[in-house]
Amino acid sequence: MSDSAVFSKRQSIEQVEEGTELAPKFDEHGLIPCVTTDFETGEVLMHAYMNREALLKSIELGEAVYWSRSRKTLWHKGATSGLVQTIREMRIDDDQDCVWLRVDVAGGASCHVGYRSCFYRSVTVGSIRGEKADLKFVESEKVFDPTEVYGDAPNPTQL
Amino acid sequence: MSDSAVFSKRQSIEQVEEGTELAPKFDEHGLIPCVTTDFETGEVLMHAYMNREALLKSIELGEAVYWSRSRKTLWHKGATSGLVQTIREMRIDDDQDCVWLRVDVAGGASCHVGYRSCFYRSVTVGSIRGEKADLKFVESEKVFDPTEVYGDAPNPTQL
Repeated sequence: MSDSAVFSKRQSIEQVEEGTELAPKFDEHGLIPCVTTDFETGEVLMHAYMNREALLKSIELGEAVYWSRSRKTLWHKGATSGLVQTIREMRIDDDQDCVWLRVDVAGGASCHVGYRSCFYRSVTVGSIRGEKADLKFVESEKVFDPTEVYGDAPNPTQL
Repeated sequence: MSDSAVFSKRQSIEQVEEGTELAPKFDEHGLIPCVTTDFETGEVLMHAYMNREALLKSIELGEAVYWSRSRKTLWHKGATSGLVQTIREMRIDDDQDCVWLRVDVAGGASCHVGYRSCFYRSVTVGSIRGEKADLKFVESEKVFDPTEVYGDAPNPTQL
């Protein structure tokens, strides 16, 4: 089924910013970024991308479906790990080029490295220009062992 | 001053995922996405981009500095509107290709349309495939009048 049945055409700034039609903007790769937060704590769990089909499926299923840029495939989060993300609320931003998902996570973890959030390290701010920036771990323990969950599947991190 | 004094080179997956060096990945446009949330409420305020200089300046100043893709210039948030974002915490994700800022916002608003958050509309989830998706306003009132604050500056939203 064509997604034009669900998404509206972007026709004016007023429609996009102040209207009630979903008229998402996909970038030159056909993707829209998505911020996913924990519904209860507000913690940012991950930042990923959706293509049209992933956004359609997320709306239809009520579960997070992304586009994996490393694997170049639709990515129903939790299909491998069991860590399904149930969408409690989906939001879209002013110019409709970013999605925000507020989710409940089965198993309490979202990060392929094993942490609860992908953002498990902080950067020291207010340092003197020219000093090497240091990271601090804000999560001290992994929620799961990635080698047990993902086996020898290729690591999605790219250098 | 060269940013190589602050950022580390990306050399291995272990270093990037499990290390304490800041080794950010900028995309083919030299940008890294940034999610900005309200420190107190956890609400996602905006999603923007930084180039190397914006990330350096944010770390140095402790205030959010982005790269404006529409204006093609460094964008010290609040320089025009007064709605400066003070960084309470900066985080980086597992593969270091996304920044999360937790901020206090002077004036309580972050969106150029006048709302507190850029994500002032929700998308109905769980609808039947093929139905037109509807947006609902989750913020009912603007915090400020954008024409008063920005005057006749061009609207950054692009169709």
